[in-house]
Amino acid sequence: MKKIRIAIVGHRFMGRAHSNAWNQVTKFFEPAAEPVLQVACGRDGSALAAFAERWGWAEVATDWREVLGRDDIDAIDIATPTHLHAEMAVAAAEAGKHIFCEKPFANTLAEAEAMLASAEKAGVVHYLNHNYRRCPAVLLAKKLIDEGEIGEVRHWRGAYQQSWLNDPGHPLDWKLRKETAAAGPLWDLGSHAIDLARFLVGDFAEIECRGKQFTCERPLAEDPSRMGRVEVECAALMTGELAGGALASIETTRYATGRRNRHSFEVYGSKGALAWDMEDMNRLRFYSEGDPEDRRGFRDILVTERCHEYVGAWWPPGHIIGYEHGFVHAAADFLDACAGGGPVEPNFRDGVECLRVLEAAAASMEGAGRVRLPVSG
Amino acid sequence: MKKIRIAIVGHRFMGRAHSNAWNQVTKFFEPAAEPVLQVACGRDGSALAAFAERWGWAEVATDWREVLGRDDIDAIDIATPTHLHAEMAVAAAEAGKHIFCEKPFANTLAEAEAMLASAEKAGVVHYLNHNYRRCPAVLLAKKLIDEGEIGEVRHWRGAYQQSWLNDPGHPLDWKLRKETAAAGPLWDLGSHAIDLARFLVGDFAEIECRGKQFTCERPLAEDPSRMGRVEVECAALMTGELAGGALASIETTRYATGRRNRHSFEVYGSKGALAWDMEDMNRLRFYSEGDPEDRRGFRDILVTERCHEYVGAWWPPGHIIGYEHGFVHAAADFLDACAGGGPVEPNFRDGVECLRVLEAAAASMEGAGRVRLPVSG
Amino acid sequence: MKKIRIAIVGHRFMGRAHSNAWNQVTKFFEPAAEPVLQVACGRDGSALAAFAERWGWAEVATDWREVLGRDDIDAIDIATPTHLHAEMAVAAAEAGKHIFCEKPFANTLAEAEAMLASAEKAGVVHYLNHNYRRCPAVLLAKKLIDEGEIGEVRHWRGAYQQSWLNDPGHPLDWKLRKETAAAGPLWDLGSHAIDLARFLVGDFAEIECRGKQFTCERPLAEDPSRMGRVEVECAALMTGELAGGALASIETTRYATGRRNRHSFEVYGSKGALAWDMEDMNRLRFYSEGDPEDRRGFRDILVTERCHEYVGAWWPPGHIIGYEHGFVHAAADFLDACAGGGPVEPNFRDGVECLRVLEAAAASMEGAGRVRLPVSG
Amino acid sequence: MKKIRIAIVGHRFMGRAHSNAWNQVTKFFEPAAEPVLQVACGRDGSALAAFAERWGWAEVATDWREVLGRDDIDAIDIATPTHLHAEMAVAAAEAGKHIFCEKPFANTLAEAEAMLASAEKAGVVHYLNHNYRRCPAVLLAKKLIDEGEIGEVRHWRGAYQQSWLNDPGHPLDWKLRKETAAAGPLWDLGSHAIDLARFLVGDFAEIECRGKQFTCERPLAEDPSRMGRVEVECAALMTGELAGGALASIETTRYATGRRNRHSFEVYGSKGALAWDMEDMNRLRFYSEGDPEDRRGFRDILVTERCHEYVGAWWPPGHIIGYEHGFVHAAADFLDACAGGGPVEPNFRDGVECLRVLEAAAASMEGAGRVRLPVSG
Repeated sequence: MKKIRIAIVGHRFMGRAHSNAWNQVTKFFEPAAEPVLQVACGRDGSALAAFAERWGWAEVATDWREVLGRDDIDAIDIATPTHLHAEMAVAAAEAGKHIFCEKPFANTLAEAEAMLASAEKAGVVHYLNHNYRRCPAVLLAKKLIDEGEIGEVRHWRGAYQQSWLNDPGHPLDWKLRKETAAAGPLWDLGSHAIDLARFLVGDFAEIECRGKQFTCERPLAEDPSRMGRVEVECAALMTGELAGGALASIETTRYATGRRNRHSFEVYGSKGALAWDMEDMNRLRFYSEGDPEDRRGFRDILVTERCHEYVGAWWPPGHIIGYEHGFVHAAADFLDACAGGGPVEPNFRDGVECLRVLEAAAASMEGAGRVRLPVSG
Repeated sequence: MKKIRIAIVGHRFMGRAHSNAWNQVTKFFEPAAEPVLQVACGRDGSALAAFAERWGWAEVATDWREVLGRDDIDAIDIATPTHLHAEMAVAAAEAGKHIFCEKPFANTLAEAEAMLASAEKAGVVHYLNHNYRRCPAVLLAKKLIDEGEIGEVRHWRGAYQQSWLNDPGHPLDWKLRKETAAAGPLWDLGSHAIDLARFLVGDFAEIECRGKQFTCERPLAEDPSRMGRVEVECAALMTGELAGGALASIETTRYATGRRNRHSFEVYGSKGALAWDMEDMNRLRFYSEGDPEDRRGFRDILVTERCHEYVGAWWPPGHIIGYEHGFVHAAADFLDACAGGGPVEPNFRDGVECLRVLEAAAASMEGAGRVRLPVSG
Repeated sequence: MKKIRIAIVGHRFMGRAHSNAWNQVTKFFEPAAEPVLQVACGRDGSALAAFAERWGWAEVATDWREVLGRDDIDAIDIATPTHLHAEMAVAAAEAGKHIFCEKPFANTLAEAEAMLASAEKAGVVHYLNHNYRRCPAVLLAKKLIDEGEIGEVRHWRGAYQQSWLNDPGHPLDWKLRKETAAAGPLWDLGSHAIDLARFLVGDFAEIECRGKQFTCERPLAEDPSRMGRVEVECAALMTGELAGGALASIETTRYATGRRNRHSFEVYGSKGALAWDMEDMNRLRFYSEGDPEDRRGFRDILVTERCHEYVGAWWPPGHIIGYEHGFVHAAADFLDACAGGGPVEPNFRDGVECLRVLEAAAASMEGAGRVRLPVSG
Repeated sequence: MKKIRIAIVGHRFMGRAHSNAWNQVTKFFEPAAEPVLQVACGRDGSALAAFAERWGWAEVATDWREVLGRDDIDAIDIATPTHLHAEMAVAAAEAGKHIFCEKPFANTLAEAEAMLASAEKAGVVHYLNHNYRRCPAVLLAKKLIDEGEIGEVRHWRGAYQQSWLNDPGHPLDWKLRKETAAAGPLWDLGSHAIDLARFLVGDFAEIECRGKQFTCERPLAEDPSRMGRVEVECAALMTGELAGGALASIETTRYATGRRNRHSFEVYGSKGALAWDMEDMNRLRFYSEGDPEDRRGFRDILVTERCHEYVGAWWPPGHIIGYEHGFVHAAADFLDACAGGGPVEPNFRDGVECLRVLEAAAASMEGAGRVRLPVSG
């Protein structure tokens, strides 16, 4: 079978989640190519070595550029902080490597466009890891919407709520600095929320956004006895209109006490409605006006049947899957694409579209009011 | 319009709930007869007078037998402790009065049979107040079952769980004495749970029951410094088989910490399932194998639409009703029956059938093992 | 006991709900004054007569101005469409009558201010019927917030979602005309949602709003064969900042398929969070960081205990109440105020504050961008 | 690091789940020994070879007895149908191999006792795979109960509900034959349900059980044109009393339409209550009378925090885990035990206790009435 030899950059949270996906994918799926865990790249030598050994990466390397120059590497897996994505992705494309890129895609729209342009020019497979798209319940939502089960969409009500910054002692890490993260939850969580809206109900036509800092200073990561200025918003509220005419709202925050990773949506159409929440990711709620009037109600669908996407490859009905499984599904589809199966989604084009919305939201947050967005062709 | 002149006996919890029903019924419904709140009977003079004034009972009386002899009384509303029901109901029937009787119906099957016999002989309207039967969500369950929406029933899983006896200081009141209450939760809660099962899925063919005392002594109501022996079980578990072949379980307890008045059932059939809970009484859960395979789930039906039974008489869709509304629905139907509209259900026949199950359960609890029940004709 | 003789204007949905409250209040509560249902006013003679008879209004009248001139009337209950409130309330105040006024308070801030001024000048009791404030679960939320249980508030996420306009055949009634309703869901539902936010977490400092029409024409009520233009928005999304620094979002719509009367909020503070939904009005969800770390979770509180506000007057714990009960609670408090117990809330001052937000939202919806609000003193 | 060389027998559902655990365990945990996937045993040569390749088993073998004789095998993983467990486990113990055994433990108590005796005599590590015991939410329940948070236990209400036999076309497979499965859901599901009750609240003192066949014949697996007799019950209801005095009920069925793998319990004690459901396995519901009276409610605890057992080794808080993760946790603990860390639970002693209850239930189901159980020492 064809092999896709992978180099990964990054060995923390996402490095683990991606490595797990490369290990699990051939156990549960039948991708058209087999992944080979060739090189793990990083700067912290001892942590990197431990990471490589644990996850089965054959080699380690400290210079990712050098690795990109090797003939025995087919694909690069970018699992680093956001500000490093553009440089790596462009270089990878120029070296003819397929790219599996973590989100947020980039710090700026300009970076995003450069990444897309180079990937398209090089003709490589490019994938952007909005993992929620491969959650079986989300895919069922997609199917129901595409089949017209909820009719014309009128409302998208999304939120991505976390609470880890409630702790005033949480240090000023890279996610709280503009240089490395571009923004706060708007980028980190909003990119997921926007991608989910785009995936299910289409592009944004106009948005406005309001942000807020609840905590202005935090202990420095490098010296907790000193305080530093938080450079990004603590929460952001977006409203807008989709190209199809629906109203949309998206709320992102790291201060929603009690919500740990609640990425949720409600979507209302002329014939039905859907609701979902990542903290309860195996279930989809579906209301249909097609049901007889006296027995309408939100159905609580446990999306673990053989007829549902991906999930049948795991366990029998009723046996739920967890967070990391979406990464495995993505790995399967990426490998298929690398083996010649055509493009995979979401990809750098989605990254560009997402950044377009994010930059507009950031501008609005800074005082630009309502911002119109070009409808993508 | 025809008037039904009512005498009520009892002025505590049930006296209030019934009085409210007689007051509300003509505001929201169009019964064929109008209730006249004629006499309130009781032994405690001052409490009775206050009760009568508050609820609009025209007169008070201390001797219910005397009241039964009056020509200006058409119906008697029995809202007393259980052990008084039989004597009153038999006397009322003999006096030709219609009867609205609170549950539990009677302390013994013999009493129950005498009550039914005298009511039938007298030809009066007789109603037994299993108020849950007129909860709109329960009526929707009935409709769905009768229409075959869940197919052949295999499982009835019922429970009536309260927790008010968790408090060891709760006194030894009439509900804890055999003479006045016959039994513990088996009678008090079990009568409701059994009636609900009978209403929705049919008669019991065989049962067995296990009881338990968790607390053996409690302060005397009349002198809290002294302890008295609790004479009834604290909890009872019944299992059995219904005449239609389904398995059934019914759990009743006053020690289910955190459950305040959770009267619930799950019912599973060959084609679907239903679930309901009195603490969330406006909703019915319904699962149908008639839904396409990829979108099956328990529907959470908010039973407040105009097409649902009774509820449309109250408020617009989405506006929920509460505990007492079922009593108002019962009052409407009782008045219709008194005005010549034929029998109302549940009635003393249901009381007899329920006592048959209760006595069998009590016998089983005392060591009789499995007890077969005659199938009622 | 002191009597408060009431004249009501309006005999439809709200006329019924108010009449029920005046009837029920002395059954379940001990107000300091007793309501006398004196006169029902309206223009539709036969419907009015039937209404008066059903609910116990002693007389009917077609000219509310004349009724205001009578000495035997102490209070007026305004249960009419919004555009009639100001004229009636001002006249009532000038006539020295106490006022129980339905929401939305008024069509304009100017009207609202005139209403407040005349009521204050006259020294009459004035009450504005945001009935949700007297839902026991909402009052528990208030208590927890005021006691600091959720700490400093960071997020208010409110929504009032209905779906009755999903039906394209619904006629162009008064709620869809600017003259009678001022606006669409922004006024009708938004006034409730804003009042709830103000009640629980305080005034708005800045807002912006976006509206949308999904349906532009509807059959005329007077001639369904002809179509007329819908003059109000179909849905409105507000975001803003509260005076205390929290971010707020409020979504109002009549097109949220599957939601029948879902008035909901989530509120997140530095130490805890709360969530509530009118369709499930007897429950409050409460999350506390005061709980030990390993056992934190949203508590599902069934607010039916004796220690909870109002609800103990009804039934034992675990027995839920319904939509209309909040009106009865309001009636009790209004009567106490009329009997000399001081002001009742919410009142016309709240109406003014609410209109201030609504007018700002309307202006924003028309293109004014972000609108700052004066902080009320 | 020490290595534990494993031979697995069985390559279907459980073979996959176990293999996954051996692969994942060193990625997420730090067991004291490393598993080596040495030999996969089975009778179906080609399926076995594919299985071995997919999961990384170094060799295949058709004769498990021969494998037991090898010096390079340290442990045997028994993932076969129940009736094969006893012979394999006894032989493995005699060969000095550690044993990881799938449930149900055995077909009879006699088998179970022989298995335990030989394992104890040989001094090998023995583990019985009731995987639910290592679900973080279940472990939190255990902790809360052991700390006295729910006080003295009064009620255990358990159920294990599936629905896969609703389909009359489902063939007469090994789970429906007495010889291979001993019984129906009583063994298959009941063993889990009983173990969970024993784990959390202790041993059974007395039980009775009622079974039922809803479907008597099914197509033969080997020739679907012919029908064969179903030899086991379709559903079973147990009630009983625990040694500590609590009442218990356990319902097991494969005919609970709409329930796919709902292994659930409610447990009520004098101070609190807990509820859990495997279909929603990351959450535990906890009610505490220690909370102030006005804010008591079932807490919905998302058991994904670092302070919870096992789950912190996976992903950040709020990221849920799935069905197979419990197997990985078990693998970690089994390996620790093999490396000298002492016994692991549940083990063959638990298997014996479970069979004791199962055999008593089976006898009761056949007419033995209430059956007392010896209290285990």
